[in-house]
Amino acid sequence: MRLSRYFLPILRETPKEAEIVSHRLMLRAGMIRQEAAGIYAWLPLGLRVLNRVADIIRAEQDRSGAIELLMPTIQSADLWRESGRYDAYGKEMLRIKDRHERDMLFGPTNEEMITAIFRSAVRSYKDLPKNLYHIQWKFRDEVRPRFGTMRSREFLMKDAYSFDLDQASARHSYNKMFVAYLRTFARLGLKAIPMRAETGPIGGDLSHEFIILAQTGESEVFCDRAYLDFATPDAKTDFDDVAGLQATVDHWTSRYAATSEMHDAAAFAEVPQPEQMAARGIEVGHIFYFGTKYSEPMGAKVTGPDGQERPVHMGSYGIGPSRLVAAIIEAGHDESGIVWPDAVAPFDVALLNLKVGDGVTDAACAKLQGELEAAGLTVLYDDRDERPGAKFATADLIGLPWQVIVGPKGLAEGKVEVKRRATGARETVAPDAVPAYLRQNRTA
Amino acid sequence: MRLSRYFLPILRETPKEAEIVSHRLMLRAGMIRQEAAGIYAWLPLGLRVLNRVADIIRAEQDRSGAIELLMPTIQSADLWRESGRYDAYGKEMLRIKDRHERDMLFGPTNEEMITAIFRSAVRSYKDLPKNLYHIQWKFRDEVRPRFGTMRSREFLMKDAYSFDLDQASARHSYNKMFVAYLRTFARLGLKAIPMRAETGPIGGDLSHEFIILAQTGESEVFCDRAYLDFATPDAKTDFDDVAGLQATVDHWTSRYAATSEMHDAAAFAEVPQPEQMAARGIEVGHIFYFGTKYSEPMGAKVTGPDGQERPVHMGSYGIGPSRLVAAIIEAGHDESGIVWPDAVAPFDVALLNLKVGDGVTDAACAKLQGELEAAGLTVLYDDRDERPGAKFATADLIGLPWQVIVGPKGLAEGKVEVKRRATGARETVAPDAVPAYLRQNRTA
Repeated sequence: MRLSRYFLPILRETPKEAEIVSHRLMLRAGMIRQEAAGIYAWLPLGLRVLNRVADIIRAEQDRSGAIELLMPTIQSADLWRESGRYDAYGKEMLRIKDRHERDMLFGPTNEEMITAIFRSAVRSYKDLPKNLYHIQWKFRDEVRPRFGTMRSREFLMKDAYSFDLDQASARHSYNKMFVAYLRTFARLGLKAIPMRAETGPIGGDLSHEFIILAQTGESEVFCDRAYLDFATPDAKTDFDDVAGLQATVDHWTSRYAATSEMHDAAAFAEVPQPEQMAARGIEVGHIFYFGTKYSEPMGAKVTGPDGQERPVHMGSYGIGPSRLVAAIIEAGHDESGIVWPDAVAPFDVALLNLKVGDGVTDAACAKLQGELEAAGLTVLYDDRDERPGAKFATADLIGLPWQVIVGPKGLAEGKVEVKRRATGARETVAPDAVPAYLRQNRTA
Repeated sequence: MRLSRYFLPILRETPKEAEIVSHRLMLRAGMIRQEAAGIYAWLPLGLRVLNRVADIIRAEQDRSGAIELLMPTIQSADLWRESGRYDAYGKEMLRIKDRHERDMLFGPTNEEMITAIFRSAVRSYKDLPKNLYHIQWKFRDEVRPRFGTMRSREFLMKDAYSFDLDQASARHSYNKMFVAYLRTFARLGLKAIPMRAETGPIGGDLSHEFIILAQTGESEVFCDRAYLDFATPDAKTDFDDVAGLQATVDHWTSRYAATSEMHDAAAFAEVPQPEQMAARGIEVGHIFYFGTKYSEPMGAKVTGPDGQERPVHMGSYGIGPSRLVAAIIEAGHDESGIVWPDAVAPFDVALLNLKVGDGVTDAACAKLQGELEAAGLTVLYDDRDERPGAKFATADLIGLPWQVIVGPKGLAEGKVEVKRRATGARETVAPDAVPAYLRQNRTA
């Protein structure tokens, strides 16, 4: 992509309304634009990251056996009256009347609708387990939206819902999501720690939040430092292996880790002193087992092997991709801008032409762009008529993993410069050798 | 994907509420489920088609030089007051008050918001042309939603917006979309004919609808049969070639073609009698040039080469992927069910195990699934414990391009059966030869 043809509205000034670094950097790097309080447009650079994050989430949901569908944003209030949540939900629910004065709402979550879909289609334990998920825009009318896409009103959420015959099999479904989440966050370049959590308005008995540590986190968290060195479950994990999955979950819940709501100071004191970690955290995922809380009032029943009908046991599992984009920046930036992990970067390479209009440099850049793209790398080619300093600043700000810097002086010596954004390390490489060099040195 | 683990709620009975064949088949094939009047959930099979349709649209938008972003679903009424459309739009606009009693709305279209995004970022003719698009859920509160996803209230739309310095360059941007649309519909397996159209509430001087012919079409259309044999613009089309693109558009508008609103009986009479075609049509795309209708009131101005500020010339370009899924079925079905074009089929292959539980057959199917997937084909493996008749009926109903039918008798002779859904043609093939056979015979 040629930058001259792209739409990348970089801000020179630091926006005053932005209180945290990810919000500042997303605005400055032209990733998002606020359209109303807590409502953002995702500009081209931001959308590319959002899609990559969602694709990783999707891949790990699919790997675990969950099935993707897509529920609408607008729901009928009647469904929520069945579960009793229509009146209970409070002002965060955006209530709407349509032209026929019917009560509708913009879905803040989908337990009711997925339960209705399930009960209309599944009758027998033979069709279980099922885990259905979607990645859809939700709306929660926060009193005071803030922190950019970290706490917005319209936000993207992956929400999965599991259906099982009994508590034991529901536990296995819960464990599948637990492991899928560990893998998802690791692939996003994040160290996420599962912590026992309160269940809140979703309800239920068993719940974990996945927390990444960041100074700007909203929650105070307490955990054993050992978690930072735990190995991520393997891509070849067998999600049908009940005991194996339980062992992984047991391992990942064997140490102390709790949000402030669940904190037990006495238990924490038993963690060896140097391993005690009290920090700020950002919640990036939340999983719940809530049994028959919705299936019972809504009549979502299946026939068991004994011929008896019983309400299914359910769980729900949420990750917010739009929040995650901000969280990844909180975890990866420096004073010059964003530092994207390779796996979610909007482009792999910033190709900087230091002398646009110089025939040799232009030709070398065009050739490099073609070769890099042919090698499967995505390239943002800065072909603007700007001075080198502005190009370096833009490249650092938007944080692409590699910068390939091409100027007439280097070319005369048969060289271009390759800079790794994360470390600042620079190497000179022959133009023809750049694609192979980048392929060898990428981490994802 | 194993069907026993999938979520495919086939309906045995024909739903009474469905008036047209695509609506009936989408419900019966477990592609969609109505959640409220004119509001649908896309079940797994339907979502796969919707995503493939959107991906083809996206690829052709990108090829033409348009840039993807994503605007939110909820908009502030203030923006629409700037253009004067807030009061003008009528009851189709879903108006909402948030918890602070601010007037919001669920976007039925995005001219205002994209104009606001553009004006905040672009100041100079040097940054033009720009074409920004998104693929996002829209809401239009139809009095009487009907025909399933053909005319629903919540629907997916690709809407692109072009920005140019003057009318001549805006015409070139219009032509880019014209050609991109021709390519898009052809790739979707549709014969779409561009017809001069009224501009309606979007406004503007120049507009074409893209219409496919189908007996269930809502519009009466009149055109020259010659269009059915016109060649689709090539994938190597140079979208920067102003004259070349104009020639393509001139060619595609050289014959008579009009919707009933624009019909001119006298001009139609001049078409040679055997070429006159009066038919029903489905609108699958609509493009507009509307000049400064929004840029003027909203102050979206750029500085020209002469240093003078002037409002930009704009156009907008819509395709509805959710409507297109239904239109593709209207154009491709038979009495047994859907017949998907290869390019949008939810899976490439239905693999039918005629004797689940028979060791040899199960092993052959598992091996075939692995080999087909390794060959890059997507497979829905019917491993349910059902009689063959039910499997054949399901496979025909959901319309995957290929059926690979595996039973113990055939295997004893070293053969499986391969059926092409579109033609009903059957061949017997050695199991090992199936992947190569399908690769050689696919059309997309």
